[in-house]
Amino acid sequence: MDLVHKKIRAIFPYLRVSNITASYGCEMTGHFAIDPHPGPINSHMNNFISPLQPRPAVDKDCEEITRLRQELADYSNVLEKMGMTAEKLRRDGFGEQKCFECFVVEDTTTKTADGRAFLWGYALYFYTYSTWVGRVLFLEDLYVSAVYRGRGIGSKLFQTVAKAGITQGCERMKWEAYSWNKPSIDFYKNRGACDVTASENLNVFQMNRQELEHLSKS
Amino acid sequence: MDLVHKKIRAIFPYLRVSNITASYGCEMTGHFAIDPHPGPINSHMNNFISPLQPRPAVDKDCEEITRLRQELADYSNVLEKMGMTAEKLRRDGFGEQKCFECFVVEDTTTKTADGRAFLWGYALYFYTYSTWVGRVLFLEDLYVSAVYRGRGIGSKLFQTVAKAGITQGCERMKWEAYSWNKPSIDFYKNRGACDVTASENLNVFQMNRQELEHLSKS
Repeated sequence: MDLVHKKIRAIFPYLRVSNITASYGCEMTGHFAIDPHPGPINSHMNNFISPLQPRPAVDKDCEEITRLRQELADYSNVLEKMGMTAEKLRRDGFGEQKCFECFVVEDTTTKTADGRAFLWGYALYFYTYSTWVGRVLFLEDLYVSAVYRGRGIGSKLFQTVAKAGITQGCERMKWEAYSWNKPSIDFYKNRGACDVTASENLNVFQMNRQELEHLSKS
Repeated sequence: MDLVHKKIRAIFPYLRVSNITASYGCEMTGHFAIDPHPGPINSHMNNFISPLQPRPAVDKDCEEITRLRQELADYSNVLEKMGMTAEKLRRDGFGEQKCFECFVVEDTTTKTADGRAFLWGYALYFYTYSTWVGRVLFLEDLYVSAVYRGRGIGSKLFQTVAKAGITQGCERMKWEAYSWNKPSIDFYKNRGACDVTASENLNVFQMNRQELEHLSKS
């Protein structure tokens, strides 16, 4: 065990350091950075397993979600300046005009320096519509912080969102993933997902505010 | 002018037959079947131009929107059986749980056999969210029936939706198009759109109800 791992173990004594190594080595897989192969959990971890159950996010989680979102962006090598702040997220997720729902996985044994829940991962989603099938759940982000991967948090979040979709009468769940993010894509495909960009030759287009304003005035 | 065009002109005396020819020849372009190059309008058409202004759909439009949606599906060669009915559309667009917004272009000179507005085109959209930029407008369908193309209805619908997005504080508009649908893709690109599937290597994934249920029980 090298110095880094000793240090990590000192901070997080309940983590399996072997898994941390694996996490840093190959599981930091980007946009949808999840644990493709959740392994069996050591018995001494059991106390830490039950709290891994995702819970709905509350407004006090917005700082932590923003921190995780930034980790995800850094990993994904997205150069664009991230315009999201905890304040915007709070307004859009917990204000009068609710734009999304979110599940989080909280470390119930530790708090952040200012006493808020420390989050290991999150899944942010909203409901859309298809004129083919009806209601659709769109999974915007699914992310588990690197050192907490490998113990099924990503799987649990993914499954929890799927259950929410079924409860809400959705006929479909959709999301996007970078084509280079093979471990995450394998994770999805192993669970029955289909790459519709490939199978239906569907491309996604977008216009940002500047183009929209130009179009509106034309 | 051949027999077919004479017949069409007899039914729709105010249509420019040259444009009908063009429409059938090259502008029936699929998923987002629109008029890529709206030309100048003849002066005798002016009486018919002002009503081309899109208006918000009302629940009585659902039968016509469903009919146009079926035209779009037929054109797109989508073999999947369309599960959408006017009743479902009415429930999801005008019921208690409102899933989408819609603009339509109505022929103000003609009614359907049972006295409802006869529609030439529609744009159906809803609001989503990006953890990068905030609110996003997603354009699910943009369609103009083949014989009514070539006079700017698609442009007008597209612009009207963009304006709605700006009014609602959206930072982005997104949509999908088949990669084979070059005329529509050119239409979008000419208006400032970017193919993010190509530029960011983003692929779209989905799971349908059956896979979601399987995942939920695993």
